[in-house]
Amino acid sequence: MTISGVWAPALTPFDATLEADLPRWIAHCRFLLEDGCSGLAIFGTTSEANSLSVGERERMLEALLAAGVDPLRLLPGTGCAALPDTVRLTRLAVRAGCAGVLVLPPFFYKNLSDEALFQSYAAVIDRVSDPRLRVFLYHIPQFSGVPIPLRVIERLRTSYGQIVAGIKDSSGDWNNTRTVLEAVPDFQVFVGSERFLLQNLRRGGAGCITATANLNARAIDALYQRWNSPQAQSLQDALDVVRGIFDALPIIPALKRALALARNDPGWLPLRPPLLPLDGAQEAKLLSALSAQGWVQAAARNVASTPA
Amino acid sequence: MTISGVWAPALTPFDATLEADLPRWIAHCRFLLEDGCSGLAIFGTTSEANSLSVGERERMLEALLAAGVDPLRLLPGTGCAALPDTVRLTRLAVRAGCAGVLVLPPFFYKNLSDEALFQSYAAVIDRVSDPRLRVFLYHIPQFSGVPIPLRVIERLRTSYGQIVAGIKDSSGDWNNTRTVLEAVPDFQVFVGSERFLLQNLRRGGAGCITATANLNARAIDALYQRWNSPQAQSLQDALDVVRGIFDALPIIPALKRALALARNDPGWLPLRPPLLPLDGAQEAKLLSALSAQGWVQAAARNVASTPA
Repeated sequence: MTISGVWAPALTPFDATLEADLPRWIAHCRFLLEDGCSGLAIFGTTSEANSLSVGERERMLEALLAAGVDPLRLLPGTGCAALPDTVRLTRLAVRAGCAGVLVLPPFFYKNLSDEALFQSYAAVIDRVSDPRLRVFLYHIPQFSGVPIPLRVIERLRTSYGQIVAGIKDSSGDWNNTRTVLEAVPDFQVFVGSERFLLQNLRRGGAGCITATANLNARAIDALYQRWNSPQAQSLQDALDVVRGIFDALPIIPALKRALALARNDPGWLPLRPPLLPLDGAQEAKLLSALSAQGWVQAAARNVASTPA
Repeated sequence: MTISGVWAPALTPFDATLEADLPRWIAHCRFLLEDGCSGLAIFGTTSEANSLSVGERERMLEALLAAGVDPLRLLPGTGCAALPDTVRLTRLAVRAGCAGVLVLPPFFYKNLSDEALFQSYAAVIDRVSDPRLRVFLYHIPQFSGVPIPLRVIERLRTSYGQIVAGIKDSSGDWNNTRTVLEAVPDFQVFVGSERFLLQNLRRGGAGCITATANLNARAIDALYQRWNSPQAQSLQDALDVVRGIFDALPIIPALKRALALARNDPGWLPLRPPLLPLDGAQEAKLLSALSAQGWVQAAARNVASTPA
């Protein structure tokens, strides 16, 4: 089994006391699965997963499954700084039947050798010890501080075959993505921004796992569906305009602000420290850019046309 | 109440399955408190704390207290990536009567604004909400990726007074330490390496919290006791030679290897990924350097002369 398409690292809403707001989160997850997302990379960077305890992530995943969401449409982020935490979350996801897990390298110690990084992933795989496990490596060095070099990917594939199923490349470095696509056969390569979606699909990539799918999934999926059509480049260009709005701002607060606007729901505004809401100037910049694109209105229409 | 002197970020021994070895750890903690350490910064970087789950750290602290170690000689590391984890560990330490807590900034998201960093510490202090709390800021940007600028220290002191009691500066940048010493009155400034101990004490600093105190506490404490004597510089010079051995190697594996040697106890060798034991060349370099200093033999004598 392989996965592909547009996956959203679903935003995590917090209530006024900064506790995870499960009903609002579950409703958002359901909305995204109706709105063009092939699946949900819950507990991604955009989800503020690293601001959630392991116990919180466990309770959230269990609640989402209890609400009837298909585990085959879930790719939970399970990579923590501490090995036992990563093992615990990964085991839960595998036993729940999730499509796979997105696994950050342990991200506190820096300048890891290839051997250390290999052994870190190997320890997780060996301890979970389940043939159903599908690990997607999470390459996001600008946050983790721990890049995942091609040599380590190749060694993991040699040792574990299809259990090491793919990668999310959030480096923003297309040369790195292309190198992996060319070097690792049958590897499910997701880009971390829809900016690279068309290039990725043309080279045999699987799709994208992208923050803006929280708001713009239908349009991103339209490119995924028609990447081999004459309209592909113009669809890509339109996506880049929306993405550009968010890339020019702190992206997670900006997405939460835009979602609050599109849903007319201030329940999306809170973030957990160290992330903070947009300041006044950032908010003005966001609203101006969204209005200029007529995009707020379109988002509002999408919400209105979706069954509750 | 203030703290000072030589504090050890006590190494954490793991058994063959990489579970924390509590009896060996507690014995080591007791040894260090007899061997010249004023106190123990358990769950520091050197302790592989970021490779331990929150639950593991809770059980370890409770076991150490149950073994009769004085909480006033403990400064547990409680800073995690996720706010609820930091709050939980900090609350436990305060309620147990620990001298203070050493708090990393949240270390996944990078390029934090001063406001974001301030709010991160403020959220911990406000949630713990206990006048006994004493926070020591942990500045170790080469691992955390999140430096703590002077502006944020000053704002925290203005807002919280003595609750923000001090700092461990592990940057290795003496200019940064000196700037903090000069700018923040009555702040308990610890350097993260005994290389800077004499300079720190001469400028009114509190002492050092240093990895090598796991092996060389008695000599480091001798400088702390005699920093104002004519022998101070020669004591510093001797410390620098030992420190230099470990700074030339991956320091945590090297300390575990040296401790295994000094105690004739291979139970100190295991590390949790992403940290790995020294490779053959590193081990040869370590053993050669330690022998040349006659230091292995001295360490062995220290152990032999200490009651079990």
